[in-house]
Amino acid sequence: MKFGERLEQLQRSKKTFLCVGIDPELEKFPPAVRSDKDSLYRFCSEIIAATAPHAVAFKFNFAFFEIHGARGWEILTQLRHEVPRDCLTLADAKRGDIGNSAKHYATAILENLAFDAITVNPYLGFDAAEPFLAYSEKGIFFLCLTSNPGARDLQYFSSEQIPLYQYIAKLVDGWNQHDNCGLVVGATKPNELAVVRRLAPQLPILVPGVGAQGGEVSTVLRAAGDTNLVIAVSRSILYASKGSDFAAAAALAAQTLQRQMQPFFHDT
Amino acid sequence: MKFGERLEQLQRSKKTFLCVGIDPELEKFPPAVRSDKDSLYRFCSEIIAATAPHAVAFKFNFAFFEIHGARGWEILTQLRHEVPRDCLTLADAKRGDIGNSAKHYATAILENLAFDAITVNPYLGFDAAEPFLAYSEKGIFFLCLTSNPGARDLQYFSSEQIPLYQYIAKLVDGWNQHDNCGLVVGATKPNELAVVRRLAPQLPILVPGVGAQGGEVSTVLRAAGDTNLVIAVSRSILYASKGSDFAAAAALAAQTLQRQMQPFFHDT
Repeated sequence: MKFGERLEQLQRSKKTFLCVGIDPELEKFPPAVRSDKDSLYRFCSEIIAATAPHAVAFKFNFAFFEIHGARGWEILTQLRHEVPRDCLTLADAKRGDIGNSAKHYATAILENLAFDAITVNPYLGFDAAEPFLAYSEKGIFFLCLTSNPGARDLQYFSSEQIPLYQYIAKLVDGWNQHDNCGLVVGATKPNELAVVRRLAPQLPILVPGVGAQGGEVSTVLRAAGDTNLVIAVSRSILYASKGSDFAAAAALAAQTLQRQMQPFFHDT
Repeated sequence: MKFGERLEQLQRSKKTFLCVGIDPELEKFPPAVRSDKDSLYRFCSEIIAATAPHAVAFKFNFAFFEIHGARGWEILTQLRHEVPRDCLTLADAKRGDIGNSAKHYATAILENLAFDAITVNPYLGFDAAEPFLAYSEKGIFFLCLTSNPGARDLQYFSSEQIPLYQYIAKLVDGWNQHDNCGLVVGATKPNELAVVRRLAPQLPILVPGVGAQGGEVSTVLRAAGDTNLVIAVSRSILYASKGSDFAAAAALAAQTLQRQMQPFFHDT
């Protein structure tokens, strides 16, 4: 089944757009966990189990595993396979390269690690995107407009009034031959999010930046509409408590977000 | 010592701009090596030892190691530490992310793996580049114009006659506060390479695409000038022979390229 269809089915049945961002930082772990020599694995594993009922997906940020070298890669592999079947797995790897390099990144992440979706940097153009797009059942989310201040530096670079990020939204919409493309737009820019939604109404949009970065669930839902949407939240769930109740606190934070989303699901 | 100074010193003493690209593909290995269960390590290790006298740097393409998972990461680590001290190490990882993610990628690659330089995707702007730029002794090479056909899709997107890749060249020149920035420009586009050199005369340029991709050493040197240049060659060295003499053949291919470069070094 196509990624988009799986996403929609799971969203409707669980009434949630929530994607829990797995960005583990040892120094933010509760002291009780930090002393465990396998703390990286243990923390993430408990977060996944506790929050899965309220989420439609888990987004693994590769930077937070690569910093632990080969062992980090092993733990990432292990955790990815612990995600329950009623949640999708997103590799937030932001890869982008040409030819065989792109093919190898796609194989490494979509095949070997068996992620359901990946984030890709579009800067290298169509032939660099193709090895990812060839996985027609997976979701390929291209960076469009990011939530950071530096988004101004390149993403608003304009040709005849069209800023680059809007050009990318239309370009990726044209790459959607296998019905497997998506876009990444930061929650901190709701006006631009609404524009992107109009330019590419069929594409799922992955929206990070809710919570710690300042975006709000209701604003995102008003801007992007209530379909084809994945809202990623990380820090405010992962570090909801500094105590040994961190997993229960994360579950509660995830449930609270899910309840904010629930009214946007209409009975069909 | 700054990356740029180290690069220049090594280039002058070894009279070479050659950077050997380590992009290992098992199916291209000589049959004798392929049957070795540790073939990935053995092949690369022999290539490094054989070609180092003719090269100023080794560029490790991360995609070709990530496809082997945690074991690939281990081998990458091991190989990076086998590079002799008179060659620089470049991580061709094309990373690009914001905030702590960018910091973690920088730590993972420039600190933990101790690479001398890294390739970075500039699409996320200055604050995403900063965690890399903070390593003032390392070389931070930003993608500017790539060698593939898809470069047309975004990199020539123009504002008031200025294509994006030229805008990036000037932008990165402005990011060069620590004198540690560089640019990546494909060898297949010598006219554009000459333009980038004029826009950013002080920045080292990493030029992949010589050999299998069609670029030529003399064309690159005429376009980019004979300083601040790293010419990356991979397949035509790595797979110079399909026999058990692969390392000797690689050394010969590297030496031939070095000899084409030698006349561009003037005695000082």
